[in-house]
Amino acid sequence: MPVNLPPLNPSQLKPIAGVRIGIAEVGVRKANRKDLTVFLLDEGASVAGVFTSNRFCAAPVQVCREHLDSGSAVRALVINTGNANAGTGAPGLAHARQTCDALAQLLNCSATQILPFSTGVIMEPLPVERIVAGLPAAMADAQSAHWAKAAEGIMTTDTVPKAASVQVQVAGKTVSITGISKGAGMIRPNMATMLGFLATDACLDPALLPALAKRLADGSFNRITIDGDTSTNDSFMVIATHQAGHAPITSLESQDGQALLQGLMQVARQLAHAIVRDGEGATKFITVQVEGGRTGEECRQVAYAIAHSPLVKTAFFASDPNLGRILAAVGYAGITDLDQGLIELHLDDVHVVSQGGRRADYREEEGQRVMKGSEITVRVGLGRGTASDTVWTCDLSHEYVTINADYRS
Amino acid sequence: MPVNLPPLNPSQLKPIAGVRIGIAEVGVRKANRKDLTVFLLDEGASVAGVFTSNRFCAAPVQVCREHLDSGSAVRALVINTGNANAGTGAPGLAHARQTCDALAQLLNCSATQILPFSTGVIMEPLPVERIVAGLPAAMADAQSAHWAKAAEGIMTTDTVPKAASVQVQVAGKTVSITGISKGAGMIRPNMATMLGFLATDACLDPALLPALAKRLADGSFNRITIDGDTSTNDSFMVIATHQAGHAPITSLESQDGQALLQGLMQVARQLAHAIVRDGEGATKFITVQVEGGRTGEECRQVAYAIAHSPLVKTAFFASDPNLGRILAAVGYAGITDLDQGLIELHLDDVHVVSQGGRRADYREEEGQRVMKGSEITVRVGLGRGTASDTVWTCDLSHEYVTINADYRS
Repeated sequence: MPVNLPPLNPSQLKPIAGVRIGIAEVGVRKANRKDLTVFLLDEGASVAGVFTSNRFCAAPVQVCREHLDSGSAVRALVINTGNANAGTGAPGLAHARQTCDALAQLLNCSATQILPFSTGVIMEPLPVERIVAGLPAAMADAQSAHWAKAAEGIMTTDTVPKAASVQVQVAGKTVSITGISKGAGMIRPNMATMLGFLATDACLDPALLPALAKRLADGSFNRITIDGDTSTNDSFMVIATHQAGHAPITSLESQDGQALLQGLMQVARQLAHAIVRDGEGATKFITVQVEGGRTGEECRQVAYAIAHSPLVKTAFFASDPNLGRILAAVGYAGITDLDQGLIELHLDDVHVVSQGGRRADYREEEGQRVMKGSEITVRVGLGRGTASDTVWTCDLSHEYVTINADYRS
Repeated sequence: MPVNLPPLNPSQLKPIAGVRIGIAEVGVRKANRKDLTVFLLDEGASVAGVFTSNRFCAAPVQVCREHLDSGSAVRALVINTGNANAGTGAPGLAHARQTCDALAQLLNCSATQILPFSTGVIMEPLPVERIVAGLPAAMADAQSAHWAKAAEGIMTTDTVPKAASVQVQVAGKTVSITGISKGAGMIRPNMATMLGFLATDACLDPALLPALAKRLADGSFNRITIDGDTSTNDSFMVIATHQAGHAPITSLESQDGQALLQGLMQVARQLAHAIVRDGEGATKFITVQVEGGRTGEECRQVAYAIAHSPLVKTAFFASDPNLGRILAAVGYAGITDLDQGLIELHLDDVHVVSQGGRRADYREEEGQRVMKGSEITVRVGLGRGTASDTVWTCDLSHEYVTINADYRS
């Protein structure tokens, strides 16, 4: 059961003018499963994205990068679940290209105008014929109201579909922002850490989009971790269709730029948090705040050490205030000149550690009370400076082992 | 159940002339448990050690470093289990010193001649009065034949006591080497990753001992990982009593030096492997060999990425040849200019991946056969150079979660 994640209400997802979505069942891995999703974009849409930092990146990620770099106007995204097309060598690359070719032919555009995405099992040949054969059905299904269906169509071990939507006022017009995401394991920073697709009808200078995508990822998907495994296929795409009819935004620092950024960040963060809340086996949603660092980078380093520690994560699962494990993670995070005598630790409102030692007034019942909750904030003070950063994660439960020991069977 | 670890046979552990060991039950955390161990060294013994790299190192580690740095001749080691005396601030340091003071008084020597060690729960005050009160009983128990009892006396979540012993010929004399270790969770490289005590009656230039300890740790304890958590208390100590009666070794590169090194490394490695075999919830013993790297460091980096990946570890637990997870870990290990087209992967004798893709002649039944074993070697070729390194680890099972969710209760 996802942690405090209300069920998806399809009617709350605003359609985005200029984006239609079609879904088909093509049997990539299992029968009777929505496993092929196509995003069709009106002419004039802009797309930017960020991809996994994994050097063993999947074939579709390589092809996406090529196609985006070519500067071609993107007309469609094609996403299959069930197979990641990663660790598949040269044939895998050929399969990703074949998918683009087939869709380009149907859309009467160039293959470089198609972006392919895959998610699922690694190192199995992609059943490209079934995907190609299913493209016409997916296209025929295309509607602007299909966001909820798409959220389902890209799931792997996710237990619930994930989507979010807001409307903001930009330059006197109502702008819509809608996004979907998937991912529940092999989730770690250093890039989008899952599949995420965010679209808006806002009008903005297309040149702003790459930096915007990076900024959104860094404030959301690049700050979550479930198991520390960076996937081979992570992709986060931002689509702007420029159809809202307001004067185009030319700077993100302008008032309208900020309004749009805020709306986009809200949706991106909601989608990223949804991934953690539905983390494999997650029973708790944990916010790790590290402050008092010399740089944001070292705060992140400490936050991730805590968020990745299996010992910390199992303690959360057990609601056991075995908080020394957090101190140990702070200590091995890699800050070589850390002064342990300056460390402070709060668990929600409970002040646990001062000057590197357990406080005399700390009561285990207090720690226990916080640990029993399903939303917990760990706050660490490093006492070295004024930088801070935040990372979101979940606990490590029996269910995580069960899911990952049985995923393929 | 530890993985292929035969039960300890106390009669196979050679006593080391000049070392006597006494154990007592003092109720550090639980009653009726051997939890205090004292090593008494004859005058003239030399001691060197390596300690955790965790910046949040425990009070006893800080005191050990001080006492070793003081150059005082070590006369005794005192080890308690049940409480790590870490994250305890200034009172913790005072408690570690108090323990040394008390034992020094009993031995009529200086406190700087005592090395203290603690292992157990972090961030709880050390019940120093019970430890001090138990020292006379531990001393009264001291015998050279008590190695097996000591192995038991330092256990925490270990399911079996760990000890190893060999005899080697050095300069025409039979030299004995015996050691004990403990540790089953919070185990990761960057230092001894547990408590380990190794003693020999060999005669050698005491100046050689610090480098020897480092070399032994790097070939054994610094190459194992269970959960990637570096403990606050890791300590690995090498004791030489110089009582074997042969001409002292003045260089480790000499023939006798090599004979001794080999014997010591054999015991150190056996003790380190025993920790992995008894890793919390371990059901398999995994050797991760990475070759073809530009440097040993990058090989280690890749080996640890594989050995720490919860997804890889759960796949081993499930005997599921979901080997793409290994490729993903290779890809995110941090080698930024890695060419995935050169990666090779073997699982024992099965060649799985060539040039970054699954081999056409690979059969899943073959992968399955290897995965079902309890001792598995993963061999990764990076195709970038001639360096290599090896790391040992275990799988991640339900039992790991159970143990760490319930450790304190």
